[in-house]
Amino acid sequence: MSNKKPVISIVMGSDSDLKIMQDAAEICREFQVNFELSIVSAHRTPERMFEYAKEAHFRGVRVIIAGAGGAAHLPGMIAAISPLPVIGVPIKSSNSIDGWDSVLSILQMPNGIPVATVALNAAKNAGLLAIRMLATADKNMQEKMLAYQEKLKNSVLEKVERVNKNYAEDVYFSSY
Amino acid sequence: MSNKKPVISIVMGSDSDLKIMQDAAEICREFQVNFELSIVSAHRTPERMFEYAKEAHFRGVRVIIAGAGGAAHLPGMIAAISPLPVIGVPIKSSNSIDGWDSVLSILQMPNGIPVATVALNAAKNAGLLAIRMLATADKNMQEKMLAYQEKLKNSVLEKVERVNKNYAEDVYFSSY
Amino acid sequence: MSNKKPVISIVMGSDSDLKIMQDAAEICREFQVNFELSIVSAHRTPERMFEYAKEAHFRGVRVIIAGAGGAAHLPGMIAAISPLPVIGVPIKSSNSIDGWDSVLSILQMPNGIPVATVALNAAKNAGLLAIRMLATADKNMQEKMLAYQEKLKNSVLEKVERVNKNYAEDVYFSSY
Amino acid sequence: MSNKKPVISIVMGSDSDLKIMQDAAEICREFQVNFELSIVSAHRTPERMFEYAKEAHFRGVRVIIAGAGGAAHLPGMIAAISPLPVIGVPIKSSNSIDGWDSVLSILQMPNGIPVATVALNAAKNAGLLAIRMLATADKNMQEKMLAYQEKLKNSVLEKVERVNKNYAEDVYFSSY
Amino acid sequence: MSNKKPVISIVMGSDSDLKIMQDAAEICREFQVNFELSIVSAHRTPERMFEYAKEAHFRGVRVIIAGAGGAAHLPGMIAAISPLPVIGVPIKSSNSIDGWDSVLSILQMPNGIPVATVALNAAKNAGLLAIRMLATADKNMQEKMLAYQEKLKNSVLEKVERVNKNYAEDVYFSSY
Amino acid sequence: MSNKKPVISIVMGSDSDLKIMQDAAEICREFQVNFELSIVSAHRTPERMFEYAKEAHFRGVRVIIAGAGGAAHLPGMIAAISPLPVIGVPIKSSNSIDGWDSVLSILQMPNGIPVATVALNAAKNAGLLAIRMLATADKNMQEKMLAYQEKLKNSVLEKVERVNKNYAEDVYFSSY
Amino acid sequence: MSNKKPVISIVMGSDSDLKIMQDAAEICREFQVNFELSIVSAHRTPERMFEYAKEAHFRGVRVIIAGAGGAAHLPGMIAAISPLPVIGVPIKSSNSIDGWDSVLSILQMPNGIPVATVALNAAKNAGLLAIRMLATADKNMQEKMLAYQEKLKNSVLEKVERVNKNYAEDVYFSSY
Amino acid sequence: MSNKKPVISIVMGSDSDLKIMQDAAEICREFQVNFELSIVSAHRTPERMFEYAKEAHFRGVRVIIAGAGGAAHLPGMIAAISPLPVIGVPIKSSNSIDGWDSVLSILQMPNGIPVATVALNAAKNAGLLAIRMLATADKNMQEKMLAYQEKLKNSVLEKVERVNKNYAEDVYFSSY
Repeated sequence: MSNKKPVISIVMGSDSDLKIMQDAAEICREFQVNFELSIVSAHRTPERMFEYAKEAHFRGVRVIIAGAGGAAHLPGMIAAISPLPVIGVPIKSSNSIDGWDSVLSILQMPNGIPVATVALNAAKNAGLLAIRMLATADKNMQEKMLAYQEKLKNSVLEKVERVNKNYAEDVYFSSY
Repeated sequence: MSNKKPVISIVMGSDSDLKIMQDAAEICREFQVNFELSIVSAHRTPERMFEYAKEAHFRGVRVIIAGAGGAAHLPGMIAAISPLPVIGVPIKSSNSIDGWDSVLSILQMPNGIPVATVALNAAKNAGLLAIRMLATADKNMQEKMLAYQEKLKNSVLEKVERVNKNYAEDVYFSSY
Repeated sequence: MSNKKPVISIVMGSDSDLKIMQDAAEICREFQVNFELSIVSAHRTPERMFEYAKEAHFRGVRVIIAGAGGAAHLPGMIAAISPLPVIGVPIKSSNSIDGWDSVLSILQMPNGIPVATVALNAAKNAGLLAIRMLATADKNMQEKMLAYQEKLKNSVLEKVERVNKNYAEDVYFSSY
Repeated sequence: MSNKKPVISIVMGSDSDLKIMQDAAEICREFQVNFELSIVSAHRTPERMFEYAKEAHFRGVRVIIAGAGGAAHLPGMIAAISPLPVIGVPIKSSNSIDGWDSVLSILQMPNGIPVATVALNAAKNAGLLAIRMLATADKNMQEKMLAYQEKLKNSVLEKVERVNKNYAEDVYFSSY
Repeated sequence: MSNKKPVISIVMGSDSDLKIMQDAAEICREFQVNFELSIVSAHRTPERMFEYAKEAHFRGVRVIIAGAGGAAHLPGMIAAISPLPVIGVPIKSSNSIDGWDSVLSILQMPNGIPVATVALNAAKNAGLLAIRMLATADKNMQEKMLAYQEKLKNSVLEKVERVNKNYAEDVYFSSY
Repeated sequence: MSNKKPVISIVMGSDSDLKIMQDAAEICREFQVNFELSIVSAHRTPERMFEYAKEAHFRGVRVIIAGAGGAAHLPGMIAAISPLPVIGVPIKSSNSIDGWDSVLSILQMPNGIPVATVALNAAKNAGLLAIRMLATADKNMQEKMLAYQEKLKNSVLEKVERVNKNYAEDVYFSSY
Repeated sequence: MSNKKPVISIVMGSDSDLKIMQDAAEICREFQVNFELSIVSAHRTPERMFEYAKEAHFRGVRVIIAGAGGAAHLPGMIAAISPLPVIGVPIKSSNSIDGWDSVLSILQMPNGIPVATVALNAAKNAGLLAIRMLATADKNMQEKMLAYQEKLKNSVLEKVERVNKNYAEDVYFSSY
Repeated sequence: MSNKKPVISIVMGSDSDLKIMQDAAEICREFQVNFELSIVSAHRTPERMFEYAKEAHFRGVRVIIAGAGGAAHLPGMIAAISPLPVIGVPIKSSNSIDGWDSVLSILQMPNGIPVATVALNAAKNAGLLAIRMLATADKNMQEKMLAYQEKLKNSVLEKVERVNKNYAEDVYFSSY
């Protein structure tokens, strides 16, 4: 185990969420930000959740990413206890009612306790949002984000060219 | 304040829920069951919620009724901490998305942590469900419930008579 | 057939619901509570449903678990006839409109007739809720429920360790 | 009370549904079909509902119109017991989740037990549908229905003229 | 082609609906009622639809069953033109938004033009509803419907026995 | 009545839709395009609807705007019969299920029969869309549309200034 | 690459939308209208989107078809910048909430900025709508559209015959 | 106008959103963070939106809060152009389909472009989330957030006392 202190903490309610949530970890690696990743269940380990949320900011964590499915209480409960910004990832679990349950359980927080909700299963965007938050006080990180956005643009432009080639034979086609 | 120990504990996330939740208290009075009623917010008073849920069964509470709106985490969090049966009342608060948020946040609990969800704003049914739970080991209470159901029936039959009278003049009408 | 008297009665509208509803039976076995399991269709066997609901509490049944899909009338109709607490399990049957039909048909009961609704397909939670109801008058059963909750916690903690090991190599990773 | 035997039977779960359901009675009067109108609650008077459904066709009733709100079980339960065609009117009651609950509870009946569902609160259309059913074996009634459809058409054409007059001044307007 | 005159007319918007709609034909065969089955598209063959609806009652048709998916206009348009009772079957076609589109396009007809809507894909219930309509003036057919309901009951009771046998070994099980 | 030939034809299912649909007429006036406005009900005047749709393009109409509520069949049926582009305006009528019925009845047209759907009650946008369609072959009209877009921009910029003034006193405020 | 100038411009947010959007291109080919097809992402290439929308009408483009999934901003943003009619195709992408997200993001445009929305994944109808728009000033194209509608009708009539043959043996069947 | 540089920038699509969005400004005042507030419409002033998003981080802005209703493209488009964290506030505007349109248009952003979505109309939580983001690099601000959370708790505890007093007379009541 690394002894580097984590800056972004990624938690999820169940190990079945891991296949979704590792996209957030991947972004941390790509932007070279120390992170931790673990399972903290609001419903099955409420004390652990409580302690985790109470102490995260003392351990140096600066942003929390929390993913959960169904009646997803993890992001909101952490946000109630911790002063850190909490990014909620709604996960479409089995027996979910089309994902609406986790989306609404995370999004519709009462006044006073904000959760930054991202799209269904969008752990990658949760990672990117955490990076943008850190970049509010780190110009170097902001440069990396701008470079990332440039990379996104270039990957689209490459696809534009590929589409142009594939359709070039087409007599009615004039490519943009 | 009464020194009788409460058997049913009614809690809600906000005092704005009181106008809905007092219907549950009314049922306790009607069935003469000691109850307590208070505000316990999962999001604004997480420690209080934690202690409340941890200790309720030691204080003699046997059923918990918890009402909350929006991303309603109170019933589920109490059910995660307490061994008592928890009845969740989804409340349609202002800025609710038509009540779907509280319904799904309370209903769609993960395996292992049950919440007994009743209809939107249905604190009265929450009270009656609590009575039925107590009646599982109390034949006297079960008799009261049967009497209550009889009373419901009779109130309908009275309305039947009133409808019959009002429509009796009507030439095409033959009343059932 | 056993001659032990059932305490929890598990019924469902169709044998196609059996694969979901047997999770409730499994919980009864785990907590060593006598149960019965049968098919009672509100729509195809209305008299049987009527008699079943009328007599269950005379046969010693203390909690009813009823599962049904689509326009699911079974839990509500039983609750209308019986004084027992009825736990409704909405089942996502084929041709269901995403499960919304069974959820709303079971949940949205009128004032006076409560049904304790659990999540879509959540027969396991229905079983656990029934156990919690019995435990309101049975300290031994309450101890078992507390032990069950402890077991849930420990199964999560084991997963925490496994996740920690798998990610230990990761240079940016510091595990919680 | 009239001693004419009712052909169409209009029932509803609660007297609060009367303001909606009287539109069906109005259609019976308009088409001069004997009808009865009463309150039969599946949940508060299950025995009455049972007997009503069991006997309606012996009393000469040929079509049943049943209106109910929330978890609306009345139309489906009657259809399960009676061989008569049952027309279900979903009613948007207070605390309804936007009417979805009554619509889905009435519409999504399982194979074998049909309910003819009409639009939310559409008791008028329920009446007209009952007339069309009776007209399947009554050419005179079918003529009345065709005349009714003609009347609908003419009421629109009158509005067309009125709109034409109101907009005639408008320089850019040429009316159809 | 048979020269028997059809009493029930089954139409659908597309041949892809045939696999659903043949359940209605099956009921006609079971109850030995002459029927016809064809494709009539409101959108692709509007004149054909118009003529079909205009003439069906002259050809001896007494009930129309119309199935359609997506923005399903067929049942409502036929009901606007014909005086016959029209049973609408919402079909969950590909690219449907979970079936909501066809359900609402068929169900929510304006005042004056009723459509008898059945559950999503429930062509079998459409057939049974048509039989019940014919039975309003045919005691023999009503007897057949009562026998059909008895058969439904017995098929459930057989399943009850089978379930009882399978669970008989179970020590905690006492079967109802 | 004007003898100018209408280029845009605005129709609606009921005169109760007039208060919404007149926004489309207003746009025609603003862009000085001849229009007609009338009531054409797919359900109450199906023949009139049929003739209207069959002949509109012979009368010189180039774009049709059709508004309807509930199970809104008017835009789709016109599009099935006419070769003209049809713009559908979903209208939230009374007893609508929150507008979903008209939106889905108009939007979800099957392959082959397009309807250009605009937002709920958005008759103004229907008018603007019709203008853009006419502008595809009329550079002058395209200029007017560009001017209209400029006007929209300027009305926002005026509001920007007003907001700036109102907040200028605020010590923490620096306006953009 | 062809040097013919495109009249219809088909753009989409991602190359994963290509399998849907090529149906629009197919219609252009069928009606022999010059088109272009490319990828323009509002979110990943905002400048490219901006320039594309700003210049399309100068390049001779007369109608824009824009497809996008999820929070689909492409059609609306193009419509905000360009004076051309924009047809929006909601695409049900992976992680979509049943397609509702793209439908509502495209449909519910504010007053002033119309988008012509077609059904979920309905790129074919987008193509046909574009043809109808061009036909508003091109009688030849209108003839082609009428011929296309005739072809649709005939393809249904062929299916009618096939269905008639398949069911001819059936003794209860008399085909329409 | 103040010459202090804004750290939080609050923008909205229309001045009708001001009554909602000023709650975010109120939080900035309460936490004494410089802010700006203005109208930037993605649809009516696309160039202004583009420039705003392109330059905000050069002007010293560190967090953007963007509110919009209907097909709400403002937060997502700003996030596509700017490297700053963007908090999206879905606003339930008139003609909204119950708020679902703005919620889904803001929440369901594609991979690569995150928006931090808060609850419907929850501009207050948007403000608090912005403060938490700034606090990731400002221990003083984090202290203020902890104090704010303490204040929330105390306001609940005061209500607890008030409720206790009001119910003290009640014989069955024992307050928690």
